[in-house]
Amino acid sequence: MLIVQKFGGTSVGDLDRIQNVANRVAKTKAQGNDVVVVVSAMSGETNKLVGYAEHFSKNPARAEMDMLLSSGERVTASLLSIALQEMGYDATAMSGRKAGIQTDKVHTKARIQEINPQVMHEALKEGKIIVIAGFQGVNENGDVTTLGRGGSDLSAVAVAGALKADLCEIYTDVSGIFTTDPRIEPKAKKLEKISYDEMLELASLGAKVLQNRSVELAKKLNVNLVTRTSFSEEEGTLITKEENIMEKPLVSGIALDRNQARISLQGVKDRPGIASDIFNALAQAEVNVDMIIQNKAFDETTNIDFTVPVGDLSDAKDVMDNFIKNGEIKDDSYNEDICKVSVVGVGMKSHAGVAAKAFSTMAENNININMISTSEIKVSMVIDEKYAELAVRSLHDAYELDK
Amino acid sequence: MLIVQKFGGTSVGDLDRIQNVANRVAKTKAQGNDVVVVVSAMSGETNKLVGYAEHFSKNPARAEMDMLLSSGERVTASLLSIALQEMGYDATAMSGRKAGIQTDKVHTKARIQEINPQVMHEALKEGKIIVIAGFQGVNENGDVTTLGRGGSDLSAVAVAGALKADLCEIYTDVSGIFTTDPRIEPKAKKLEKISYDEMLELASLGAKVLQNRSVELAKKLNVNLVTRTSFSEEEGTLITKEENIMEKPLVSGIALDRNQARISLQGVKDRPGIASDIFNALAQAEVNVDMIIQNKAFDETTNIDFTVPVGDLSDAKDVMDNFIKNGEIKDDSYNEDICKVSVVGVGMKSHAGVAAKAFSTMAENNININMISTSEIKVSMVIDEKYAELAVRSLHDAYELDK
Repeated sequence: MLIVQKFGGTSVGDLDRIQNVANRVAKTKAQGNDVVVVVSAMSGETNKLVGYAEHFSKNPARAEMDMLLSSGERVTASLLSIALQEMGYDATAMSGRKAGIQTDKVHTKARIQEINPQVMHEALKEGKIIVIAGFQGVNENGDVTTLGRGGSDLSAVAVAGALKADLCEIYTDVSGIFTTDPRIEPKAKKLEKISYDEMLELASLGAKVLQNRSVELAKKLNVNLVTRTSFSEEEGTLITKEENIMEKPLVSGIALDRNQARISLQGVKDRPGIASDIFNALAQAEVNVDMIIQNKAFDETTNIDFTVPVGDLSDAKDVMDNFIKNGEIKDDSYNEDICKVSVVGVGMKSHAGVAAKAFSTMAENNININMISTSEIKVSMVIDEKYAELAVRSLHDAYELDK
Repeated sequence: MLIVQKFGGTSVGDLDRIQNVANRVAKTKAQGNDVVVVVSAMSGETNKLVGYAEHFSKNPARAEMDMLLSSGERVTASLLSIALQEMGYDATAMSGRKAGIQTDKVHTKARIQEINPQVMHEALKEGKIIVIAGFQGVNENGDVTTLGRGGSDLSAVAVAGALKADLCEIYTDVSGIFTTDPRIEPKAKKLEKISYDEMLELASLGAKVLQNRSVELAKKLNVNLVTRTSFSEEEGTLITKEENIMEKPLVSGIALDRNQARISLQGVKDRPGIASDIFNALAQAEVNVDMIIQNKAFDETTNIDFTVPVGDLSDAKDVMDNFIKNGEIKDDSYNEDICKVSVVGVGMKSHAGVAAKAFSTMAENNININMISTSEIKVSMVIDEKYAELAVRSLHDAYELDK
């Protein structure tokens, strides 16, 4: 098998942990696999460099930041390669450039455009273990770029796709994807497999293990992704095509997102295009709107409720103030004490009653549902934040996810 | 003027010092000059990374070391560029690769083969201050290489040569080249100008300010080199072509090298080619032989004395043991308690009596001369180490270098 293994900052947090990673990589190689490793900077290193830059400027140039920050991953890649060589393995460290990772020109948030895998193919043909500095690539000007948050995961998935790897293992400090957050529901179970789409829903609904960009890219490139921990031999969770999952569970997991605020608009002038005007203005202010509900009022106006991440709330208020000044909205109110609980599962597609069970579970526990939104594979409900844990545990029970 | 300024590790040792360097660069730019800056890693950083590598291996692969160590200079270059931008200057950080520094393939000790200055020319045309990560280049495989000890000085001189810069300023923690070590002779004076050849002699004879490689390259590329300190506004020493120095002093300086050992061979078989055999064997063992004296003995044998750096002594002994085993040398003895005192000056070429004055100065102070070697511009004497300071001070006085 050809396996890409990606190790995050905590997995390479100090020299002993890098040695630990070397042992794991060596074991995978010794089992007869070809191995390509992608590493992050040692944890703390990137923050230290950002701190250095901020000593000089609140808004340092992005090209300089890329040259600065990309050095952390190069250090880890060199050290891991040296550790593997010392163990008798033929290893070679590569920068993003050397590995052929071409990006667009957007410094600090570059997108991978193409991977030229020729140098990697040659090294693999010679039996080498390749150790790639993650998080970075090179643009058409020959300048180093970085890929933004979760960038090393993206490097790993893109490399796995370009090399048609059998597996792309993402090592973090958590051991996989759980039916829900084990800190809330101790009976939560680790999932053996989950589909890309379910993972995307779970990730966007608050599961922190993987960034959506990486899962989307894995789906696009058809990369079998595994999240697991570098701190034990425990098996992780496979994220794969829906077709690869034989027994599709009705519900895979319960997600909780506390980072939501609700905005209620009363007395919105009921003219054609008013909703479009409001949400376009929010989009231009880069406010991420999630759920939207519109109710016709008894008079000639309408009420609109929507949710945004708490961090976008103040920007959203500024936008609403303009509409109130123009007289197109009579009044608005805000509520940060809400949360969003979601039931996710591909099995819903072919089974009725999943949503109904969610609603009745809330009712049985006297939890009022403020807003509802559904898709093919999820049901999301906005409720008062104080009921968050109760809702998660009740739903986990109702769908028998501990079984 | 186009000025290349190189700042070593202590000059960029912490964030405040980097800001200090930014102020100095900005001032040079504000005076109407074009400025290209070459920086080393923050002091201590390279040693830290070497320590990391040695945690894993006593003999880490050189390609990996280059990827590891080259990151330190990239960090400094990015930070200095950010500092300059924050002060309102248009600066751009460049890796060795981006600056067009092409080297051979010898990792950790690469030699600069060519500089392609096109990208630098374009940046200068746009009025930019260029900040280059020193110590590094790129080989024909596209892999990063480093230039070995004194590598950032080499980068600066090579860049100055390629850009035909008017001046290449090397900033260190000492303020220039002195007539002798001021710690030995407080009356030592800083030289205003010195020729490449004199500097080469002084450097190889113990003056630590500049490495010979950099001075040789400056001479070859006809680069006007200035050594000065980044900690004050004090003028430094200009190292330039002999023709540029109008008043040639008889003697420019007195150098002291304590790092010498003497090897005496007695009863060397007096056959043709024996000296060649001995010194070829030493060369193959990479022992650096400096001075050599051969004396015919009364019997059919000869005596040979030579000096080597103390660090090469044990390798030299191994080589000699072989000759003793073969019966070609009867006996050997070693003396580490010696030093080499040298009088250097281009004026010697046209003035007789300089060497004679050195010898008589030794005699007046009852210092026995063990070995003598002379060149066009220097007289070197090996003496007992206990006389080192006395010899330096007496010679400094005799040639009136404090005047």
